[in-house]
Amino acid sequence: MPQLTGSIVKYPARNLVVWYLVLIILGTVLLTLPICRGTDAEPISQLDACFTATSASCVTGLAVRSTPHAFSFIGQLVILVLIQIGGIGIMTITTYTLFNLGSKPSLRARAILTETLGADDDTDLKWILRHVLLVTLFSEGTGFIILLLRNAFIYDFPTAAWHALFHSISAFCNAGFALHDDSLVRFQDDVVVNMTISALIIVGGIGFPVLLDLNKNWRKGIFGGWEDLHVHSKFMLIGTTLLLGGGFLIFLLLEWDGVLSEMPLKDKLLVSAFHSVTCRTAGFNTIELSSLTNAMLFISMILMLIGAGPCSTGGGFKVSTVMAMAVNAWRTFRGMTRINFARRTIPEGVMQHAMATALLFTVIAIAALTLLLVLEQSSTPHPNSQGVFLDAAFEVVSALGTVGLSTGFTSTLSTYGRMIIIALMFMGRLGPISVFVALSHTTNKTPVEYPKEEPLIG
Amino acid sequence: MPQLTGSIVKYPARNLVVWYLVLIILGTVLLTLPICRGTDAEPISQLDACFTATSASCVTGLAVRSTPHAFSFIGQLVILVLIQIGGIGIMTITTYTLFNLGSKPSLRARAILTETLGADDDTDLKWILRHVLLVTLFSEGTGFIILLLRNAFIYDFPTAAWHALFHSISAFCNAGFALHDDSLVRFQDDVVVNMTISALIIVGGIGFPVLLDLNKNWRKGIFGGWEDLHVHSKFMLIGTTLLLGGGFLIFLLLEWDGVLSEMPLKDKLLVSAFHSVTCRTAGFNTIELSSLTNAMLFISMILMLIGAGPCSTGGGFKVSTVMAMAVNAWRTFRGMTRINFARRTIPEGVMQHAMATALLFTVIAIAALTLLLVLEQSSTPHPNSQGVFLDAAFEVVSALGTVGLSTGFTSTLSTYGRMIIIALMFMGRLGPISVFVALSHTTNKTPVEYPKEEPLIG
Ligand SMILES: [K+]
Ligand SMILES: [K+]
Repeated sequence: MPQLTGSIVKYPARNLVVWYLVLIILGTVLLTLPICRGTDAEPISQLDACFTATSASCVTGLAVRSTPHAFSFIGQLVILVLIQIGGIGIMTITTYTLFNLGSKPSLRARAILTETLGADDDTDLKWILRHVLLVTLFSEGTGFIILLLRNAFIYDFPTAAWHALFHSISAFCNAGFALHDDSLVRFQDDVVVNMTISALIIVGGIGFPVLLDLNKNWRKGIFGGWEDLHVHSKFMLIGTTLLLGGGFLIFLLLEWDGVLSEMPLKDKLLVSAFHSVTCRTAGFNTIELSSLTNAMLFISMILMLIGAGPCSTGGGFKVSTVMAMAVNAWRTFRGMTRINFARRTIPEGVMQHAMATALLFTVIAIAALTLLLVLEQSSTPHPNSQGVFLDAAFEVVSALGTVGLSTGFTSTLSTYGRMIIIALMFMGRLGPISVFVALSHTTNKTPVEYPKEEPLIG
Repeated sequence: MPQLTGSIVKYPARNLVVWYLVLIILGTVLLTLPICRGTDAEPISQLDACFTATSASCVTGLAVRSTPHAFSFIGQLVILVLIQIGGIGIMTITTYTLFNLGSKPSLRARAILTETLGADDDTDLKWILRHVLLVTLFSEGTGFIILLLRNAFIYDFPTAAWHALFHSISAFCNAGFALHDDSLVRFQDDVVVNMTISALIIVGGIGFPVLLDLNKNWRKGIFGGWEDLHVHSKFMLIGTTLLLGGGFLIFLLLEWDGVLSEMPLKDKLLVSAFHSVTCRTAGFNTIELSSLTNAMLFISMILMLIGAGPCSTGGGFKVSTVMAMAVNAWRTFRGMTRINFARRTIPEGVMQHAMATALLFTVIAIAALTLLLVLEQSSTPHPNSQGVFLDAAFEVVSALGTVGLSTGFTSTLSTYGRMIIIALMFMGRLGPISVFVALSHTTNKTPVEYPKEEPLIG
């Protein structure tokens, strides 16, 4: 039975949940203050403030109120601080949690994780936080300078600086909040903005362990360095490249006669590339999502589900999970009993963990979508409620993957619908397993070994 | 690299694919003959004949032509024979394949499988076929007699007998073909027909190994017998019960104010129960599917994906796979390293196999749905093509799960769309893995063991 007693500090996952709850509550209170309200904007309800605070803290980007109009400069600043704390917090704590998974990680497990992280054995929370801050500051700083130079051509200095700061932080944290109601549609054909935001999204989304590993090995040159990378880093780099390339090509193909049809070739390429980058977890957009074809919206949902890397600012199943599944499937089809990749053997427990993650994710998504469909359209039969299914499914996946893209369904949501999306953003950000583990009681006993017996599969 | 050479007999999976291809081609040729055409019916195209033959051989039940009107008695007989051969064939061959999985199953693996099947160690194809035929004959015979007695009140004797025969075979084989254009809607409130068809569906779908195991243990009484059942049988019985009960309750809840609203309580219960039974794999229906809510159609898709049992006439992921995943997830969340169930330890390889199956299934479904959306609506943006997404997704899942339910999309399919559905029914019936293994070259080498390294998951 789940057990809610026990010290909070004892369980890092429980710690994480409490930490984010406090951040969200604080954000909600601040955002309801009149000083955070935009000029001429209607007062914000408690629920919408909570929605916005959750969306910012969990770096999702779904919005029920317009960021540029419903909030004052102070309000936008609150949102930005929530994004920054949420983004850094998640990278730091999830990395730290890896070192303390379960109550007493075995020395061997700890050694492997330390090795994977490329850190010293006495790595502690402070060490991790310091390095995360360094990476964040360096990335956001670079992004800020480039965007500032670009914005200087369009806006007066304070506006240019504020926009550059907001968007570079929002991009690195994969938050998807923008200071324009059209997200980044106005920069659709702007190479500099597209490249800068894309780079920030990718660096923020690939995950802290990969960045550390790359930093340790890049001096050895491309080939020598590649050899020495950890399996996790190879999974992330190969997977990310395949997904970026695949997403780009599929968008180009599926939308060539669709939204891309009127654009010059350069913009066709730019829009496709940006969508491929932003879709897995960032949540900015340079085209109207509701004008895409059903096929492309469906592929976008798959990309949103896959998401970014562990210990990153991105969400989803995680690229490394999907890579592990793919390698496992390939080896299994070939009749191999051992899962090897790049001269390393992947322990069997990894597949059990991956499977548990995938299953919990799926069950939550199914339950949430069903509930949302019931709440938003009650007993309306299918022929009278066409289109709602895709919109609702897109919204659920977007929230659970902390992506923030929407076909426009967010603003039409009822009170209960908003609550479901808030819960999904929260679970998606902390990882459903963290939430589950936090609420349940982990045992340390190693179970008895019984005679082996296989059920029949597939 | 996949390799297409090598003896057909050497690989049971390849054998299976060839076997079904021959059956489908034969069926296609027969169904195009004028003698198979119904009175006043338009001549059937090669493609539609192939569609019907595939749907019958693969016991799916999707139809582009009306079974009662487009085909003569001879045509319907051909369909029935294809269903019967397809149904018996799949039970026999998949069971046999289990004994010969891979080129040289280890003695230990073989012993486990023999034990799981509850058969002797010298079990051969003939033994299996004989027992499958016995089970089939007994089940269909009982169903035939009850349906004949019921039909005698409605039709003249030859019609009553023909309908009873056709529907009892179609139900036991989980084929979903019916001799009425409305499937079984006219028997919506008929307790006898509902109960008989449901029983046949459940027995045919639970899988041959479970039936053997039950037969061996039922004399020991409920408690003694239950203890001695295999893990696989326990998984199937528990899983099937949960799914039947869950599907029934969810239908009742979601459609109480929907399609059920005008019905008396007895019919409400009957329709909900029948949908829960038929939806996972059989494909009959006693209500119009297109009049369900989006939420219920979505839940139906999940049920269709889960499907029935291995070595049965049903399709899908299989109930035992989902049960294994669920038990694995639960144990993993509790921090246990060993997966125990009912005083048996489930070997780790099972999870790798389950994961590979699930992934291949998912990838095929995603590719097929994307292709179908592109083909059926090209570059139409989402707001102008509402509803198509759910219809197409439902159709893909129905074909891949060899269910045969449809919201009406089948008849609107273009030529290429029909071809995709044919391919899906074929892959869904043989199991994607069989098709994949048949086309690829299985290695027997045990891979080297490298140093272990874990990627980060979730
Ligand atoms: K986001
Ligand atoms: K069927």
